[in-house]
Amino acid sequence: MRTKVAIIGSGPSGLLLGQLLSNAGIDNIIVDRSSREHILARVRAGVLEEGMVSLLDKAGVGERMHREGLPHEGFSLAFDGRDHRIDLFDLTGGKRVMVYGQTEVTLDLIERRERDGGVTVYEASEVTPAGFDGDHPYVTYQKEGVTHRIDCDYIAGCDGFHGASRKAVPADAIKTFEKIYPFGWLGILAEVPPVNHELIYANHPRGFALCSMRSNTRSRYYVQCSLDDKVEMWSDDRFWDELRRRLPTHHAQALVTGPSFEKSIAPLRSFVAEPMRFGRLFLVGDAAHIVPPTGAKGLNLAASDVFYLLSGLLEHYQDKSKAGLDAYSERALRRVWKAVRFSWSMTTLMHRFPDTGDFGQKIQEAELDYLTQSRAASTAMAENYVGLPY
Amino acid sequence: MRTKVAIIGSGPSGLLLGQLLSNAGIDNIIVDRSSREHILARVRAGVLEEGMVSLLDKAGVGERMHREGLPHEGFSLAFDGRDHRIDLFDLTGGKRVMVYGQTEVTLDLIERRERDGGVTVYEASEVTPAGFDGDHPYVTYQKEGVTHRIDCDYIAGCDGFHGASRKAVPADAIKTFEKIYPFGWLGILAEVPPVNHELIYANHPRGFALCSMRSNTRSRYYVQCSLDDKVEMWSDDRFWDELRRRLPTHHAQALVTGPSFEKSIAPLRSFVAEPMRFGRLFLVGDAAHIVPPTGAKGLNLAASDVFYLLSGLLEHYQDKSKAGLDAYSERALRRVWKAVRFSWSMTTLMHRFPDTGDFGQKIQEAELDYLTQSRAASTAMAENYVGLPY
Repeated sequence: MRTKVAIIGSGPSGLLLGQLLSNAGIDNIIVDRSSREHILARVRAGVLEEGMVSLLDKAGVGERMHREGLPHEGFSLAFDGRDHRIDLFDLTGGKRVMVYGQTEVTLDLIERRERDGGVTVYEASEVTPAGFDGDHPYVTYQKEGVTHRIDCDYIAGCDGFHGASRKAVPADAIKTFEKIYPFGWLGILAEVPPVNHELIYANHPRGFALCSMRSNTRSRYYVQCSLDDKVEMWSDDRFWDELRRRLPTHHAQALVTGPSFEKSIAPLRSFVAEPMRFGRLFLVGDAAHIVPPTGAKGLNLAASDVFYLLSGLLEHYQDKSKAGLDAYSERALRRVWKAVRFSWSMTTLMHRFPDTGDFGQKIQEAELDYLTQSRAASTAMAENYVGLPY
Repeated sequence: MRTKVAIIGSGPSGLLLGQLLSNAGIDNIIVDRSSREHILARVRAGVLEEGMVSLLDKAGVGERMHREGLPHEGFSLAFDGRDHRIDLFDLTGGKRVMVYGQTEVTLDLIERRERDGGVTVYEASEVTPAGFDGDHPYVTYQKEGVTHRIDCDYIAGCDGFHGASRKAVPADAIKTFEKIYPFGWLGILAEVPPVNHELIYANHPRGFALCSMRSNTRSRYYVQCSLDDKVEMWSDDRFWDELRRRLPTHHAQALVTGPSFEKSIAPLRSFVAEPMRFGRLFLVGDAAHIVPPTGAKGLNLAASDVFYLLSGLLEHYQDKSKAGLDAYSERALRRVWKAVRFSWSMTTLMHRFPDTGDFGQKIQEAELDYLTQSRAASTAMAENYVGLPY
């Protein structure tokens, strides 16, 4: 097989890049080691920046998102028994975020790709990018006992943190930066109306909690937990009790509970690999960087990577200039690091750290107190939350 | 002896409180274990917030400060070979800071107190506040072999971190919070014109540096050093070489060097004692809290404590209400913690930490990059630097 851009990974970044390329008439093939069903069953983030919303619109897959998604103009910081609203719309001069699950984004993109007849190879094993340090890159994979090869101009590695793309890069060509946080998030999905019409990020002596949602009837809730905890240790009752304790009274009293239909524990990590380009291989999204979920930057960063890579590819195919591709890594990383900083700083501000001691706890309280009083500090938080400009 | 307010400590906070009380006709006595000469020989901070400038004006000691002090409308953040100006005046809607050494402030206050005939007892040993948990507090001290006792209504503990006031409080009545930083500041004074008309805070892979000044002909420079370093290890030449290396080229080339006439190493510490009031004893300034010098908050916090305590005492003596005294600790601490947070955060942003690793280094760079691009973030830094409202 031969294509212009071989895309490894059929998550939202691979699908979005593929759709935008297809719309521009640039031939591409997506290969993924998972099945279509598995990809659509993944539960992930659900807060989209306006930049990502625009890209989805540009890809032609925004229709259901605008119908079913929930535009949010603010969120709450809860601490010390009170509740402080960060008015995103007011502080950023009219920006919003869109609450719409990653699963839905993925479904919209997959359906559109299928409708357009775009090629996606599912359940491909041993997916391997190769030859990207020269002029003739290709991707090989196994399927039903047969080895396949896709020859291409460029490879986009959109296959996540554990994917093959970053692993294919020689160790001495890549530098990685990492921070592991000493706690996890226990999250549940439940078919109950959200406790608040906007998200609540709660800093509590017992640990962080987040009240989020997927729709007006489906809630996504999290509590900070120990890395030693197992899902089996958290009955629904224990979860609801713990969540209630970490919320200001008026929210705790308003909380509607019900059986969870998804429950999982995620570790928190910050990770960046530099550079994001190796010859004709480009890393995109989680393949190059991971942020803790606080502030919901992961999916949005994948979208900004797609934006920069798409610009570079369009410039290359349409204007015959490689400047955009050459600038990809630097442009993407500059925004990545700012989001990594924001996610780290919001995580640091809102969680209980085992080793931070009383001083660290007081610093958190002082920062929250300052944030709620300072328009400048609230604006800085808001502009990061809605997403810095591409 | 009998007075209304016994003030322990003749540094700027004790002197300022004493002067403001005297101006309001409230009798006070200052006792200090040091000599007048020793007090005037101390080299300390030199950047005053507008709130402190106003208090000095109110005390009637602002004349020389306005004549000789240097109003600054901005400062520089230097990193990555470049220089970014934080325009305090523009970002805060017209606020400035005043560069005027603490030694000068102290001298102005001492001279005014002497002119007014205010009582200051120098070289008093064994200064001890007592009886402050009841209605009849007093301060005892030894001088020339004789024990003296000052009976009073209230005691103001303005005697610094190592003073007797905080130590007189029973351990179970006080809670302390502390952070020790893993480095020190090596500082020099030299009779050379400052390298820049405004302060330069430099983040460099070799460590932090600060270019400050006392006047247009006297410079105050610092470099981050190891806590194991001794002053003897730092010849003037070594100091100048190291400072030059940590500055952007155009500053390094403009640096005028000369013999230092003061050289010392200071450790960096954040410390807060809570509460700041124990019956009829009030802790003020360094007696209750210490901040690292980054951002120059120490002296200014002492001034805001004086402001809150003065309000309380005036309310008590003039309006017969204890509300202001009862609120002192909470009001002072709320502002203290915000300044502790700011000093900690600016220290964290600008220094090389031995244990922070590559990730921490990149986070610093991302934050500096963000700061220089975001008006909101620059404003947050500027409003803290010029001083949050009292």
